[in-house]
Amino acid sequence: MTVPIRLAVLGSTGSIGQQTLDVVRRHPERLKVIALAAGENIDLLQTQAAEFRPRFVSCASKQLVCGDAVCLSPQTMAFHPDVDIVVVALPGGHGLAPTLAAARAGKIIALANKECLVAAGALLMQEAKHYGAQIRPVDSEHSAIWQCLIGETSQPAKLILTASGGPFRNYSVTEIESVTPAQSLAHPSWKMGKKVTVDSATLMNKGLEVIEAHRLYGLDYDHIEVVIHPQSIVHSMVEFSDGAVKAQLSPPDMRLPIQYALSYPDRWDNPDLPRADWVKIGRLDFSEPDYNRFPCLKLAIEAGKRDGTYPAVLSAADDEAVSLFLDNRIKFGDIAAFVRIALEEHNPTAVPSLECIAAAEDWARQKVSQLARSL
Amino acid sequence: MTVPIRLAVLGSTGSIGQQTLDVVRRHPERLKVIALAAGENIDLLQTQAAEFRPRFVSCASKQLVCGDAVCLSPQTMAFHPDVDIVVVALPGGHGLAPTLAAARAGKIIALANKECLVAAGALLMQEAKHYGAQIRPVDSEHSAIWQCLIGETSQPAKLILTASGGPFRNYSVTEIESVTPAQSLAHPSWKMGKKVTVDSATLMNKGLEVIEAHRLYGLDYDHIEVVIHPQSIVHSMVEFSDGAVKAQLSPPDMRLPIQYALSYPDRWDNPDLPRADWVKIGRLDFSEPDYNRFPCLKLAIEAGKRDGTYPAVLSAADDEAVSLFLDNRIKFGDIAAFVRIALEEHNPTAVPSLECIAAAEDWARQKVSQLARSL
Repeated sequence: MTVPIRLAVLGSTGSIGQQTLDVVRRHPERLKVIALAAGENIDLLQTQAAEFRPRFVSCASKQLVCGDAVCLSPQTMAFHPDVDIVVVALPGGHGLAPTLAAARAGKIIALANKECLVAAGALLMQEAKHYGAQIRPVDSEHSAIWQCLIGETSQPAKLILTASGGPFRNYSVTEIESVTPAQSLAHPSWKMGKKVTVDSATLMNKGLEVIEAHRLYGLDYDHIEVVIHPQSIVHSMVEFSDGAVKAQLSPPDMRLPIQYALSYPDRWDNPDLPRADWVKIGRLDFSEPDYNRFPCLKLAIEAGKRDGTYPAVLSAADDEAVSLFLDNRIKFGDIAAFVRIALEEHNPTAVPSLECIAAAEDWARQKVSQLARSL
Repeated sequence: MTVPIRLAVLGSTGSIGQQTLDVVRRHPERLKVIALAAGENIDLLQTQAAEFRPRFVSCASKQLVCGDAVCLSPQTMAFHPDVDIVVVALPGGHGLAPTLAAARAGKIIALANKECLVAAGALLMQEAKHYGAQIRPVDSEHSAIWQCLIGETSQPAKLILTASGGPFRNYSVTEIESVTPAQSLAHPSWKMGKKVTVDSATLMNKGLEVIEAHRLYGLDYDHIEVVIHPQSIVHSMVEFSDGAVKAQLSPPDMRLPIQYALSYPDRWDNPDLPRADWVKIGRLDFSEPDYNRFPCLKLAIEAGKRDGTYPAVLSAADDEAVSLFLDNRIKFGDIAAFVRIALEEHNPTAVPSLECIAAAEDWARQKVSQLARSL
């Protein structure tokens, strides 16, 4: 008999959190949820707690009664000695503190939060290395790269991140300017949360992923390429020094990278996960991203190259701008424009502390909301 | 300083042999040719010997003078204690004895000879396991599968072998019947020897590869799929139990799988090897193979399923038929027809000895040449 892996699912009511619990449902003998943390969605958290009977629960808004479960902060869950894997699926800035706590406790971290790798990735990777923590990516692209690197003894020569191109892939510059939140939320291939869906439409999501890939795999930005691949079947590729390329492919379903972050180095049979039918798929297309129509991608790569506090400013400014866009307070085209201004006006720090990163993020958010008010 | 890996290149004047020496030229500090064996092409063998200064040489036709090189049989080269890796690129039946000798000497075998895996694969794999020999595939498809399996702890769920579809991919049944040897030798994507080029046109090559994949990776035939992929960029794929698929891709160049069989588990930088440009490649297509227009594929898979002496009969009958076709003595369509008759009329042995396999091969060759004479 196998001893089940004990999970803390931080952000259990979000899209990734719910899909994580879906994976747990399939593997009750392999996985045991011992902690659930959510934000405002108390009803769903209580339903989840009733089903999974965790020892610990947490929600952002108030003290919670869930059977015998004890209330703990996400951070305390993250370093609790009984937790084997911490799934960090908390949105935005909420992910950083628990992820750092888990890293310092030498945990296995299934990381679905982009922002903490982007804003504080240098620090996080350093702490993880120092304390022997293992960061396993949950993003489909970084999971694909990870899967392609397994067993390889040589450094990769190039990472090729694929991007669906989002719903506005074939729109003109003027058409893109004025698309609505509803249009942006209709992603052609992935079912995701709102923020990341808008980020996919601006290609900011891919830009953030380039920065993440740099943090996770240590390659220079010149060796990280973005290729538009509208079918979202090839999740990313790795080129090696002999010219061989390895790719990970599958019909888009986030439960695959989630499960792999839990099952690694093994793979678990899961009938819920879709299988590729190559004849039905028929073709896979690749093309160049258009940096003019999607300026966020370029902004992100530039912020990544400049490093220091720039990625934090990029990420926070974008987060704020996307919120304003979803509230119909700014136009789609303003997202890139405001992020650009924030980056241009930012007074950077080269090797920032956590406090310094937080201050840069606050500044960026204020900058963007101030720009929005002045419209 | 690294001690160079000492190679015996058996079949050095053929297509794979020459490309192996090309790889050696790129890595003089890593690879040292100590033995060269060829067939009839004495001139080229002497040129190669003058360049690589092997300690041992061999040719099929006569005693050879190549500087100080000692004449040895390929078999003796294959188990010589100073040889680290035996590259078996001898054509057809010539590969079996040296490969078995290398297996029994516990060598690393870079295997480019299809026939010995097809005809005597059960025996060969058993000997390799018993004597701790390592069989590294040189075929691009099996190398791709091997590369995808590295680091994986779970058995694969499915192997997906890609096939270019050959030059007659879009021909009708009647058009295919009467194509000429010259048409068959114009392969759309790979530069290979004549026999394998014709086998690619009939899809027999893919059928033999299905049997090889079964021998090498132990999967049932029901879990080995063939998909037509005309660009020959995806060299093959592996599906795992969680639905994840891994693929190995690159512009077609046999020097890549050859080099990987020598560099494994590392990868060596090699500027001769082409790099994929995803934007230029643009698209990758997949479709179902047509078993009606290409009956050899089905014949091969059926022979593989029946096992015993059937794969040996398939391989030898095909070899004979392709020779007759290249000599303009039979039609293209006769290749499949004659192989089918040989399989139908064969009196099989379930668990054959080497002698039994050789007898089945002789019988199959005679059967096909007798059928040709009766035309």
